[in-house]
Amino acid sequence: MPLPAEIRAVSGRLAVTKNFSVAVTGHTDARLSAAIARALRHCEERTGLTFGRTADGLFARADDPARASLVVACAGPAADLPQLGEDESYTLDISAERAVLRAPMLLGALRGLETLGQLLQGDADGWFLPAVAIRDRPRFPWRGLLIDVCRHWQPIEVIKRNLDAMALVKLNVLHLHLTEDQGFRVESKKFPRLHELGSDGNYFTQDEIREIVAYAAERGIRVVPEFDIPGHAASWVVGHPELASAPGPYVLVRTWGVFDSTLDPTNEAVYTFLDTFLGEMVSLFPDPYLHIGGDENNGAQWSANPRIQAFIHEHGLHDNHGLQAYFNRRLQEILARHGRKLVGWDEILHPDLPKTAIIQSWRGAQGLADATRAGHTVLLSNGYYIDLSEPTSKHYLNDPLPVDTPLAPEEQARVLGGEATMWSEWVSPETIDSRIWPRTAAIAERLWSPRDVTDVDDMYRRLGYVSRRLAEAGSRHEANREPMLRRYAGDRATEESLAALRELVALVEPVKGYQRGREQPETTQFTPLTGLADCATPDSQPSREFAKQVETVVFGDAEAASLAPWFAEWGRLAGRVRSAAAACGPREGELMALADQLSEASQAAGEALAMLASQTETADLAWREAMFACLDRAGTPRAAVELPLVAPVRLLVAAAIEKTRRGTMPPDAWRAHLPAIAFPKKPE
Amino acid sequence: MPLPAEIRAVSGRLAVTKNFSVAVTGHTDARLSAAIARALRHCEERTGLTFGRTADGLFARADDPARASLVVACAGPAADLPQLGEDESYTLDISAERAVLRAPMLLGALRGLETLGQLLQGDADGWFLPAVAIRDRPRFPWRGLLIDVCRHWQPIEVIKRNLDAMALVKLNVLHLHLTEDQGFRVESKKFPRLHELGSDGNYFTQDEIREIVAYAAERGIRVVPEFDIPGHAASWVVGHPELASAPGPYVLVRTWGVFDSTLDPTNEAVYTFLDTFLGEMVSLFPDPYLHIGGDENNGAQWSANPRIQAFIHEHGLHDNHGLQAYFNRRLQEILARHGRKLVGWDEILHPDLPKTAIIQSWRGAQGLADATRAGHTVLLSNGYYIDLSEPTSKHYLNDPLPVDTPLAPEEQARVLGGEATMWSEWVSPETIDSRIWPRTAAIAERLWSPRDVTDVDDMYRRLGYVSRRLAEAGSRHEANREPMLRRYAGDRATEESLAALRELVALVEPVKGYQRGREQPETTQFTPLTGLADCATPDSQPSREFAKQVETVVFGDAEAASLAPWFAEWGRLAGRVRSAAAACGPREGELMALADQLSEASQAAGEALAMLASQTETADLAWREAMFACLDRAGTPRAAVELPLVAPVRLLVAAAIEKTRRGTMPPDAWRAHLPAIAFPKKPE
Repeated sequence: MPLPAEIRAVSGRLAVTKNFSVAVTGHTDARLSAAIARALRHCEERTGLTFGRTADGLFARADDPARASLVVACAGPAADLPQLGEDESYTLDISAERAVLRAPMLLGALRGLETLGQLLQGDADGWFLPAVAIRDRPRFPWRGLLIDVCRHWQPIEVIKRNLDAMALVKLNVLHLHLTEDQGFRVESKKFPRLHELGSDGNYFTQDEIREIVAYAAERGIRVVPEFDIPGHAASWVVGHPELASAPGPYVLVRTWGVFDSTLDPTNEAVYTFLDTFLGEMVSLFPDPYLHIGGDENNGAQWSANPRIQAFIHEHGLHDNHGLQAYFNRRLQEILARHGRKLVGWDEILHPDLPKTAIIQSWRGAQGLADATRAGHTVLLSNGYYIDLSEPTSKHYLNDPLPVDTPLAPEEQARVLGGEATMWSEWVSPETIDSRIWPRTAAIAERLWSPRDVTDVDDMYRRLGYVSRRLAEAGSRHEANREPMLRRYAGDRATEESLAALRELVALVEPVKGYQRGREQPETTQFTPLTGLADCATPDSQPSREFAKQVETVVFGDAEAASLAPWFAEWGRLAGRVRSAAAACGPREGELMALADQLSEASQAAGEALAMLASQTETADLAWREAMFACLDRAGTPRAAVELPLVAPVRLLVAAAIEKTRRGTMPPDAWRAHLPAIAFPKKPE
Repeated sequence: MPLPAEIRAVSGRLAVTKNFSVAVTGHTDARLSAAIARALRHCEERTGLTFGRTADGLFARADDPARASLVVACAGPAADLPQLGEDESYTLDISAERAVLRAPMLLGALRGLETLGQLLQGDADGWFLPAVAIRDRPRFPWRGLLIDVCRHWQPIEVIKRNLDAMALVKLNVLHLHLTEDQGFRVESKKFPRLHELGSDGNYFTQDEIREIVAYAAERGIRVVPEFDIPGHAASWVVGHPELASAPGPYVLVRTWGVFDSTLDPTNEAVYTFLDTFLGEMVSLFPDPYLHIGGDENNGAQWSANPRIQAFIHEHGLHDNHGLQAYFNRRLQEILARHGRKLVGWDEILHPDLPKTAIIQSWRGAQGLADATRAGHTVLLSNGYYIDLSEPTSKHYLNDPLPVDTPLAPEEQARVLGGEATMWSEWVSPETIDSRIWPRTAAIAERLWSPRDVTDVDDMYRRLGYVSRRLAEAGSRHEANREPMLRRYAGDRATEESLAALRELVALVEPVKGYQRGREQPETTQFTPLTGLADCATPDSQPSREFAKQVETVVFGDAEAASLAPWFAEWGRLAGRVRSAAAACGPREGELMALADQLSEASQAAGEALAMLASQTETADLAWREAMFACLDRAGTPRAAVELPLVAPVRLLVAAAIEKTRRGTMPPDAWRAHLPAIAFPKKPE
């Protein structure tokens, strides 16, 4: 994962033993050697084999390519730093004799080594690589992950292990969201008050930035920094209130949302400041692209400031949006002087914006289309908001250029790719990996693999595989789960209690979208993220499997009785959770509530099943109302988690209510009708 | 843990809510504030509560101590860096109204905050601190952990998380073993060939050393560096062969043992070099103590070098040991000039060694006694070799000054404490935490708590508790377990397979002492430590519980039948492991062998039980031989792990063999007799 562009299985297998050897023909350099060493080391760690070494401790190279197990044939080097649009293609041919990895340029070799690592497997006969012929290249040249290090600080070790994980799934852009109302996360030697007063001491030093950029480049990943202005700027003006559009003093924001602090575009000193600051930053971030944010400027400070409104009037800028366009144009000029191209969010789109600016669309397909048609190159992030705890399948099927795209071919050519966005309101360094991985691997596949690779079941199957590889590469999304659960459960929890909680946590998901802020309104930047919602992960696997089974019952011809073991199990689990709850001290209340919800879902499902099976009874209004009331209770979020199995139970209840109509409707009508019954629109 | 010197439970409890507040009276400084912030943050993470903050993001302080939940009353500061023998005492009085932590000096406050953190608990009524009155102080002033970063490199994040864990159990010395045949792990700007050619690129930069020293000091922990000379010196002479006692060239050693490379004490240039080098190092390591190793010099290069032998003769040094004493005396002079006191291993003991040198005893009680009587202050490490996978109880009961110590009071006063030693032949950054923790907490208790705190069962009970606290403090001994098992099991393992392997791993232990090197003789520094022995941890809890139960049967009056469920379970587990093995690919062979051993142990135990129960049958020679042969097979190490449950089964077999004698012997004789039957001395 991501699935290669072309893959053909061939019969045979290449044994991997301690004598496995590598030869490099054609171009070679330190980056390639390091990538080969990483690949071999991972292989050693998985297999327990020890490959040959030189006295210097390096992996020994085969002198004769004809006798090597793996030949890496790289035709040419790459730029010192990875560049947008560089050739990442490669071919990989594995036979019983050897594996041959060919790439026109270095980056392709790096991508091919990751593919090789994912092919390694073992059986009773030993470790091997299956024979295969792969021709691979990416669909989009910009495949990114945004990490917001501002709302919750994420130190360099988080960034590095996520870069390793990104490399594994062939992502090639790390977008660092470095400034926000809640924190200014990069050291400025020119304006030290920015990080000194704007970060609580949590920022990347310039040495760390250089380390991140080098670490990423080593893995063929670009680093694009974002300095979000003119809004989202509280952390700038804590130390520099003179830049703001209203008098200070300012303090850092500790909660989530859209706030007023905004730079003043009418103040020439702001541009002088930004020129100096950005000049300093471009010396740290060598990539030609620089993101200036530009989103969610609420305009409150501008509207309230007569001087700013007068400026708008004098310069014929019409309104606040016109003023922001003016600001962006000035910024664009500054960046151009520093040899950088501007990237920004949807909101920067304006007729006056130079066409060289890239638009990153977070607001939807319309934004993407508008920007593309206006002549901009674009990135898609709408639909890739992995912070919202939505199912992986939804992200997976979100195509920047779907089959039915309304864009003309030349407009389509301006779609560079997309980025998953890890906004950090609800993640700590302990939980962030479990929000990014393995789900972002599905987005990586969407952006790398051919458009017609859309089999959701197959994606989930491979996601389980790649999840283990990601864990081995250093991601802590699996490792942190059990310690978090133990801390949550507390010291009095027995092994039985823990087993019950483990199963419960596998059945719940954090609430979706922006619901968590509504469920836990008192949360601040300091609230520990160690509750049930933090232990749980999006995309409950057993719930997904149950939902599939319900579908085959209500829309297919599976026996309704096949569902009964599920509900019975929930009923038993509810009892075990109740027993566990008493040992979990202050967590007792929320656990008891969830156990009750599980019981109610189990009971509703059982009654629906009985109703479905009954030859005589039909669902009267009282039954129907009782069922939906029961499911409403079962579906109410508790402790910011919810039971995704309630939705398929609703469908089952609807099927029971409508059972007499089933035979009377064509399958498509039935498929449309049943959800309408299960999820009736609430009266306005 | 460690248990305080005096602890008295009082009735009542102090509720911990989001309004929990802290006041500091008396002395305060940045270190104390940071320690209080760490304690409060851990409390937040465990409870999910969010305590009050200032606009600057700091924990809010209570203005009025009379209304604070916790009052920290520190009478005076501490030295800028922790010093040997500083006052670490404190008192902690918790009532229903408030907790009051009093300490004469800063270090005591740091220790008391750790105690406070261990008292936090929750029940259905909420989170609380139990009312208690504690008067606490350490028994020994030097309570250390040695980490060998040479055999396997351990980067700074390993050191930092272990410093956090050390602080939790009140250890106060980190002994960094920085040079070895296998690696030179510190940057020298004076002699860069040392780390450049001697480390494969894996060394602490000088900035990192400063960071480690500061991080440790912040937690009241001293850092004592060790530069192991004149032996164990291959990594020195790779870059500087002119210092060696035989001509080079040299390469780094990649295996384990005692090797020849030794500095040349007859070469004045060696002292000039060491003077410059150590002069550089003392600027990095401010502690007044510096460890020069001095162990395991095999003398081979000296004996083979006529010039060196002539030097010994000319200077009346008698032999190689005399030459090493001469070397140490010269070193001592150099160190004294740099304001440092010398520490070394047993072998440096010699009549010519100045009494100011501290001896660290790794070879046994006799070494400790000899050095003490010779007038040296001493540290005990013999018995604290946590790398040898021995039971925690053994380390726990290993007292530097046992009740029956042969030392006179003034000699006893020269025993400063001890150090657990984490030699790193068999640990990687992934596994090291599971070798250090939680076991080292028991050693920490031995060195802090009163001598009469020796209840092993109670220690194990509390060890489980402190293990969770250590995990929360950042140790990865629990977190890494499951990912390692999953990687070992491979991709074809089902959840059922994993469950069986998990139980198997809980029943086995890595082989003990220096056995692993014999079991896996081809191991080098590059061998991945990802096998079964690395997944397993010392001190199998179910095996220990079984052994206790056997004891109560054969030496007490428990029903023999109470053991039957254990064996039955092993038999079932053996079957499950066999099923799992087939899914574990190349691991199948070793898993099948272990399943067979488990079956054999189960069968032998079952037969012993039947024999014990039989009124008529007695164990004849054939039965006896068959049983012991079966147990020999079951007890044979596989994949460098062994089944500790075999030993109690042997005891059970012995009880069956000797059952007719049981009533005829006094209990003490029976206790001595049975192990002699179970573990007969093999003929020489």
